[in-house]
Amino acid sequence: MAVYTDITDEELSGLLADFDLGAPLSLKGVAEGVENSNFLLETEAGRYFLTVYERRVRPQDLPFFLELLRWIAGRGYPSATPIPDREGRILKTVRGKPCAIVSFLSGLAVRRPNAAHCREAGAGLAQLHLAAEGFAMSRANDLGQAAWAPMFAELTEAAENLKPGLAATISSDLELLADQWPKGLPEGVIHADFFPDNVFFKQGKFAGAIDFYFACVDALAYDVAVALNAWCFEADGSFNITSARQLVAGYEGVRKLSDDERAALPILAHGAAMRFFLTRLHDWGATPAGALVRPKDPLEYERKLAVHRSAPDLVLF
Amino acid sequence: MAVYTDITDEELSGLLADFDLGAPLSLKGVAEGVENSNFLLETEAGRYFLTVYERRVRPQDLPFFLELLRWIAGRGYPSATPIPDREGRILKTVRGKPCAIVSFLSGLAVRRPNAAHCREAGAGLAQLHLAAEGFAMSRANDLGQAAWAPMFAELTEAAENLKPGLAATISSDLELLADQWPKGLPEGVIHADFFPDNVFFKQGKFAGAIDFYFACVDALAYDVAVALNAWCFEADGSFNITSARQLVAGYEGVRKLSDDERAALPILAHGAAMRFFLTRLHDWGATPAGALVRPKDPLEYERKLAVHRSAPDLVLF
Repeated sequence: MAVYTDITDEELSGLLADFDLGAPLSLKGVAEGVENSNFLLETEAGRYFLTVYERRVRPQDLPFFLELLRWIAGRGYPSATPIPDREGRILKTVRGKPCAIVSFLSGLAVRRPNAAHCREAGAGLAQLHLAAEGFAMSRANDLGQAAWAPMFAELTEAAENLKPGLAATISSDLELLADQWPKGLPEGVIHADFFPDNVFFKQGKFAGAIDFYFACVDALAYDVAVALNAWCFEADGSFNITSARQLVAGYEGVRKLSDDERAALPILAHGAAMRFFLTRLHDWGATPAGALVRPKDPLEYERKLAVHRSAPDLVLF
Repeated sequence: MAVYTDITDEELSGLLADFDLGAPLSLKGVAEGVENSNFLLETEAGRYFLTVYERRVRPQDLPFFLELLRWIAGRGYPSATPIPDREGRILKTVRGKPCAIVSFLSGLAVRRPNAAHCREAGAGLAQLHLAAEGFAMSRANDLGQAAWAPMFAELTEAAENLKPGLAATISSDLELLADQWPKGLPEGVIHADFFPDNVFFKQGKFAGAIDFYFACVDALAYDVAVALNAWCFEADGSFNITSARQLVAGYEGVRKLSDDERAALPILAHGAAMRFFLTRLHDWGATPAGALVRPKDPLEYERKLAVHRSAPDLVLF
């Protein structure tokens, strides 16, 4: 939760002067999103979200994210659609920071997804992959497999501090992932952060996805692997195979996986666990004690890594 | 800004099961309110605010606050109206904490009120005083004049640390306030925290007030004095007499002040500055470094105290 930027009524009126949204009626800072400041904005024209881009998101990536949202919305995907100003611009500025006004997306994230939620989430992910087809812009996955070894080079001491002996284990994981990382799988735009808190439901049905600020072009099946890790582990660290089968079945109800994609899921899931382990380990060390935002525990993903390491055929359906 | 309580989709559904508001459609923690956790809640029936009471607010005071909101809403005052459940209850529980669902109030707080805003605010305050007439419940002002000397007894060292010599100055202020504090002024329900961030505008017009968690029964003119301090000082510490005259004129357009009330405004404003100085000084010392909520600077009110001390006829119109 975070609101880093404070917006005055005058700054808001200045921003809205470029839009056909009428006068502002209310603005509420929302305790949501770690990288950005988010506001619920009500104007005479309706309800919107105002996102001010603060950290992590590189300004040069913003056109990709915003145009992607416009593209998938145009193809009917339920997400927050950027609202263009009178001159058609969707990337705007407030207080000297980049910002965008997007449509308000209703829905509730679920805290403890059950197998039925996993099925819906899988379907929602596949719908995204189809909706993004034909999107002309591209963005490399800067947190993809090639990035992990260089990231870890800076984090060996942090890993050792987290758990003695862990640095060597991670090194050997990284070698295995480099050796076995699948090539040639179908690629496209992936969400890359399709976690339960980024997926909305209404009455138990998939209602949309938010937070596309890790979206990039990579293997579509890798997105499934990220979701399997995020949705199908129980609080006690065990992998719920029923939920996993439902997630994949939901996905395949919309987009069929090829044999190669299915066969690659275990190593992709191992790699996806590595990606979130590494970024959490980095954030864990980089966040000063008492900071406003508590970082997520890297040990959660260390345990998921261990599961994939010890049961490399776990995610086979 | 704060959201202390995390509410799961299951807990929310449990709470809403008692209401005729349909299914929940979205819930957003709002970075607003220091004492409570606030959520924007959307259900099939519309938009609401869910407030979970956390700190400072004593549970035994909640019926007064919530019934007051119901009373003034019933008399047309723009504020957040508590929504009763199917059995008519407005004080509910979620996660073992007291909570209430209230109507959503649109409007924008202004950061730098001008004289026209002050006039509107004065009128809005007087409307509140009239709307609350006849409300049968009562609550003493536990931060009123009688409380200041005992509060300060615990804070002399903190005052000295803030500014050497300040403890003696405050002691002499407190004596003066005790001697000259007016008695017998018209009393009623006062907001007691009618600051710019608790007052909403739409298109420059008063649109409602929020945050009634200091409301109590006290001299109505004291509420005007609190507002004069809160609205009519410039960022450089100077008192804007034009804004102050407009605030009082706006107030008197709705409710006339008696001669006694007018004559009492200077000492009431001096006392109102003392009240906020003391609570800010207390919070300043009580908040650990690096806490989620940054306390407000007590020096702002120390400067306002100094203004009233040196110009005891300043707030005379």
